[in-house]
Amino acid sequence: MSLYQYIRDIQDFPKPGIVFKDITPLLANPEATSECLSLLISSLNGRKIDKVVGVESRGFFFATLLARELNAGFVPVRKPNKLPFETIEATYELEYGTDSLQIHTDAIQKGDKVLIHDDVLATGGTANAVCELVERLGGEIVQCNFLMELTFLNGREKLTGKEIYAALTY
Amino acid sequence: MSLYQYIRDIQDFPKPGIVFKDITPLLANPEATSECLSLLISSLNGRKIDKVVGVESRGFFFATLLARELNAGFVPVRKPNKLPFETIEATYELEYGTDSLQIHTDAIQKGDKVLIHDDVLATGGTANAVCELVERLGGEIVQCNFLMELTFLNGREKLTGKEIYAALTY
Repeated sequence: MSLYQYIRDIQDFPKPGIVFKDITPLLANPEATSECLSLLISSLNGRKIDKVVGVESRGFFFATLLARELNAGFVPVRKPNKLPFETIEATYELEYGTDSLQIHTDAIQKGDKVLIHDDVLATGGTANAVCELVERLGGEIVQCNFLMELTFLNGREKLTGKEIYAALTY
Repeated sequence: MSLYQYIRDIQDFPKPGIVFKDITPLLANPEATSECLSLLISSLNGRKIDKVVGVESRGFFFATLLARELNAGFVPVRKPNKLPFETIEATYELEYGTDSLQIHTDAIQKGDKVLIHDDVLATGGTANAVCELVERLGGEIVQCNFLMELTFLNGREKLTGKEIYAALTY
């Protein structure tokens, strides 16, 4: 099975000049989802994970599946004012302006082995902010994994020292 | 195991006077998540499901797990302008004003057996809008299920004729 056939290119979304990688055909197909999950799990080589951190919103889809498969807790990282309990926040740069992400202060225990998951590794700004949040809470990041990596955006350069895995690369 | 101990009350969130049911302690605990998933699955009594529709954003957490467990496709319903492909939209009333949800036009095939999942059944406005979207695409709704039902808000009254199940009731 080629997983690439389940990723649909959408021209000019969310704005002109951007080709968006739509993962909904993959999510709609249980075999493709299963195959993708297997790739992500295999890349961990059996290492123990305590918490899987999923990034709002498309990161949630596979992060919950990964957590269940690994018998780990699932932790959402969300946009500001979405998480109801006490949070810490990290801010990162966008093309124009900045954005922020929050995590609950009780979401990670010191020494927790953490897997971070998001749908796409692009410029790496988001993933780097999530790493910062996890490390401020004392978590040890085992891997950052992604469904897709847009290699031409060099996101890995922002994630120095982190293990990175992507199921699909462009 | 009492699942209720994994739901945390947050006073005055998202606004004064509201007691928010925080599910992150449940998500952080793999045994509690597993127990909750089992309840949701059992309520279906083995009926075949083709698509599980999850509602942005907290509905995504268990909808992806349900889809995998049922060997069904997962379909996200999202706020406007988040889904990249062609969509249809339903609008529903809030306490003040309205809100809208969208689904991809290719997400449901005519005759698909559909399970709709969200984290909370409150006034039923959201779930009713999701039912409308699924039925406009020709899907047959087998059940609407929820982690929690706030029974004092009478959400079931807006979902006449639909089978409703909630793992936890308040």
